[in-house]
Amino acid sequence: MAERKYTLGLDYGTESVRALLVDVATGEEVATAVYSYPDGVIDATLPGTGAELPPDWALQHPRDYLSGLQAVVPAVLREAGVAPAQVIGLGVDFTSCTMLPATADGTPLCLLPQFAAEPHAWVKLWKHHAAQPEADRLNAIAASRGEKFLDRYGGKISSEWFFPKVWQILDEAPQVFQAADRLIEGGDWIVWQLTGTETRNSCTAGYKALWSKREGFPGDDFFAALDPRLRSVVDDKMSRTILPIGGKAGELTPRLAELTGLAPGTAVAAANVDAHVAIPAATITGPGRMLMIMGTSVCHMVLGSEALNVPGICGVVEDGILPGFFGYEAGQSAVGDIFAWFTRHLVPKAYEDEAATRGISTHQLLAEKAAALRIGESGLLALDWNNGNRSVLVDTALSGLLLGQTLDTKPEEIYRALIEATAFGTRLIIESFQDHGVSVDQVFACGGLPERNEFLMQVFSDVTGRRFGIARSAQTCALGSAMFGALAAGRARGGYDTIEECVARMAGLKDRVYTPDPAAHQAYGALYREYVTLHDYFGRAGNDVMKRLKALKAAASA
Amino acid sequence: MAERKYTLGLDYGTESVRALLVDVATGEEVATAVYSYPDGVIDATLPGTGAELPPDWALQHPRDYLSGLQAVVPAVLREAGVAPAQVIGLGVDFTSCTMLPATADGTPLCLLPQFAAEPHAWVKLWKHHAAQPEADRLNAIAASRGEKFLDRYGGKISSEWFFPKVWQILDEAPQVFQAADRLIEGGDWIVWQLTGTETRNSCTAGYKALWSKREGFPGDDFFAALDPRLRSVVDDKMSRTILPIGGKAGELTPRLAELTGLAPGTAVAAANVDAHVAIPAATITGPGRMLMIMGTSVCHMVLGSEALNVPGICGVVEDGILPGFFGYEAGQSAVGDIFAWFTRHLVPKAYEDEAATRGISTHQLLAEKAAALRIGESGLLALDWNNGNRSVLVDTALSGLLLGQTLDTKPEEIYRALIEATAFGTRLIIESFQDHGVSVDQVFACGGLPERNEFLMQVFSDVTGRRFGIARSAQTCALGSAMFGALAAGRARGGYDTIEECVARMAGLKDRVYTPDPAAHQAYGALYREYVTLHDYFGRAGNDVMKRLKALKAAASA
Repeated sequence: MAERKYTLGLDYGTESVRALLVDVATGEEVATAVYSYPDGVIDATLPGTGAELPPDWALQHPRDYLSGLQAVVPAVLREAGVAPAQVIGLGVDFTSCTMLPATADGTPLCLLPQFAAEPHAWVKLWKHHAAQPEADRLNAIAASRGEKFLDRYGGKISSEWFFPKVWQILDEAPQVFQAADRLIEGGDWIVWQLTGTETRNSCTAGYKALWSKREGFPGDDFFAALDPRLRSVVDDKMSRTILPIGGKAGELTPRLAELTGLAPGTAVAAANVDAHVAIPAATITGPGRMLMIMGTSVCHMVLGSEALNVPGICGVVEDGILPGFFGYEAGQSAVGDIFAWFTRHLVPKAYEDEAATRGISTHQLLAEKAAALRIGESGLLALDWNNGNRSVLVDTALSGLLLGQTLDTKPEEIYRALIEATAFGTRLIIESFQDHGVSVDQVFACGGLPERNEFLMQVFSDVTGRRFGIARSAQTCALGSAMFGALAAGRARGGYDTIEECVARMAGLKDRVYTPDPAAHQAYGALYREYVTLHDYFGRAGNDVMKRLKALKAAASA
Repeated sequence: MAERKYTLGLDYGTESVRALLVDVATGEEVATAVYSYPDGVIDATLPGTGAELPPDWALQHPRDYLSGLQAVVPAVLREAGVAPAQVIGLGVDFTSCTMLPATADGTPLCLLPQFAAEPHAWVKLWKHHAAQPEADRLNAIAASRGEKFLDRYGGKISSEWFFPKVWQILDEAPQVFQAADRLIEGGDWIVWQLTGTETRNSCTAGYKALWSKREGFPGDDFFAALDPRLRSVVDDKMSRTILPIGGKAGELTPRLAELTGLAPGTAVAAANVDAHVAIPAATITGPGRMLMIMGTSVCHMVLGSEALNVPGICGVVEDGILPGFFGYEAGQSAVGDIFAWFTRHLVPKAYEDEAATRGISTHQLLAEKAAALRIGESGLLALDWNNGNRSVLVDTALSGLLLGQTLDTKPEEIYRALIEATAFGTRLIIESFQDHGVSVDQVFACGGLPERNEFLMQVFSDVTGRRFGIARSAQTCALGSAMFGALAAGRARGGYDTIEECVARMAGLKDRVYTPDPAAHQAYGALYREYVTLHDYFGRAGNDVMKRLKALKAAASA
């Protein structure tokens, strides 16, 4: 019997990095290890100096990424009792857009003594929101110039993305901008560390840095219009060579092999994003099947065979999710977060006590009571905008709404209305895709919510009228990275040459499937139509009260 | 020194009757006693038979009214050590429209053995809501006939009022309708018991039975259009002789004197309604000053010198509140009830625990935290329609709304938004009065809320831009009844001939006055404008989603 082969997925999240060692032939997950970043999310004071950070900042320490690597890789090898030579490939996914300035040899500027005290020299985490002024100006300038790339992003660039962050560095710390030989995504940077070669991947380039396979980056004129000093930023500090997702970035250097316990020369895949990487792990290899990563927020991804303009999406990128397809991404800014907010702030003592007595969570208690209600019985309707609306309105200034309360309205009725609202939000996204030519026949879900809330999953299936499958792995992102590692290795080295083959062997679904109940789907139709009317009234300038209240709130808090 | 004189107020509420003995010269409240009705609100099963009542029914037992009389009057005389001859007058106020069928001698039909098992023979309490079909038909027929009286009631007759209740008796128990020699308000009935003479008062006749001083009752044709058997209901079972408020109904009979311990011949005032009677007790004797009775719901009353059409009021009645004036009434269907709902169902354990530890109520804790917020700081806005909207929309199918929630929204922010919404509702009512020629320069409040929620009172003052005085007495209704007793007695018997004189001596305000803060009033202006926009959009057919959700709710519950 041939020796078993393994592939390693490295999943760099917001708080920690996870390693997952997977059997290439079967997809069996044989070992996992997690390392929590000692510095975590840096949003209060700068390490070392203790200097206070302004509001909306969120940084990370690049040392944490490397320490994590040295901790989790040896741990899984040890746990599984696997020899280095049995690990044929390695894939990495990373939060995005998480980016940093570095020297020409890849040293993060913040690790240089002369820049350690400069916040702009550190890694800007995806949720660093302080570049909003730059994003606003960038959007205005792009719109006034009629830049076509806007269409690929639903008409609006987020402050979380690459160029607003770059521009903020230039605006506020030109010396850092100047000293930065390279400006690079965290995922590409860690692959550089592993392989010794700087590469850029099509997923982050496409979804976060305005690049497209056919048109490349925006023109130098556009960058010069932002700031003359940005004119040649792509050529000077980035690269126009972009590796497609599914490609191989390089091989593990002897130094990194020594640090991790892997074999030198192990194949390393092009970096990927921690959402998009999950697509093959959820068995998706082509159009028509949507992946929803359902947790605090929801990310929707679907593949298409052509480039279509879908309003309000986060982005469409050729080769951005799987090679040969256009990857469409949309999102809901808050889903699990809304239920968590409600459960934390608005559930009475009697419910908390009942849950405690029965040894279940408050969520479980509310879901149980909510499940006992009939559709429409509460008379409630909500909008799921407590954290703004990502798709399809792309408006962070929107806020939540609850309508229909009486003097008898109970917590489980509101809890159910909030769940239904998030399902209506997803239905609206699906219908928007469908209306613009991107078909969504079936949905596959992964993330925290599908693992623990059956009631919610049934509501989503009934509301959308779609069959919901659930990814078998509870660590879909890490599994996806491992699968890309096996692709990077290729058949010749014991891996796979095609994604279909890889998915057939390594990915799978749970037995539990959610099928829409036709009567429930029909009953939800009436509520959904009301949702759409309110969505358009408050979201499409029928009444901008939410924005005016946000402005009053900002003024009152100032 | 002349012997002190007293007057007695009898306040018949929903759950109990209260007696208050008051010094005529000073208004000093010398003794009070309360009697809870043994049968309370009869809304589940009929006493005696135990037969189940249909939904929306609410009855009372007339025996409770008389037992209460025999309990509380001797109790206050005993407590105060007052001789019967010292009590010169007696006034009664009653919930309304609370009505009953009786024989020609005043015996309630339900006390006759042959009718005891017939629910329609019992007293229909004001909140008996089962006559809604009759109210709907009455409104439709009145509108189609162009009946002018509709204008006096904001365009719509409530199911709580006199003729819908009468019509329901006829519809469902024609034998009871036929056997009823008299159909009469509870307040008039108790005065009949006291004096031996049947009278009818202008307040209940005007506000609940479609009567006006100038036009009398609707024409027989109108009643015949409802049902031919109703054609002569007024002449057959009621009376066209209506006593003005402030008038004397008669004198205490020897039999009732014996039962109560009062002197025979004691003056008895015309019956009154438990809200309207409070006007003089709050020192109001003329136009420009509004009385708000603030509790679970809010009743607004103001006097005018002419008959004006104000949309959405509950009614305008000449002599209905004080003789010589047009009494205008408006209302909010839920105020304290909304805060109670929120506090009961949506305040977390941590808050309940904190309140318990500090020995304060959850309301106090929320008010304290809410008071620390700046205007607009929460970003929230609510509509106060959890129990429908009484004035100015007159629509029970409306429901609550909360808008502006984020993932950080806290319970005290919602609590404050709900308080602000009720204040906006009052401001809209005041502006509606002003816009239609009824001036409201100043507000006087009484009831449970002004006694215990200073923060709420300041919000109402700031929002409305009005000075709020608070009635001195905590038993404003009973005091008002006692004052009308002193008026019925007249100066010759130690009382008063004019309301002004009576108010000057017997009524007063607390020292605590709420004065609007100009900056706060201005800041609330922006929120109020948003409130009005939402009010009109959801309340005036911009989007009837609330009604459709209620219909779906009814269908789902069926």
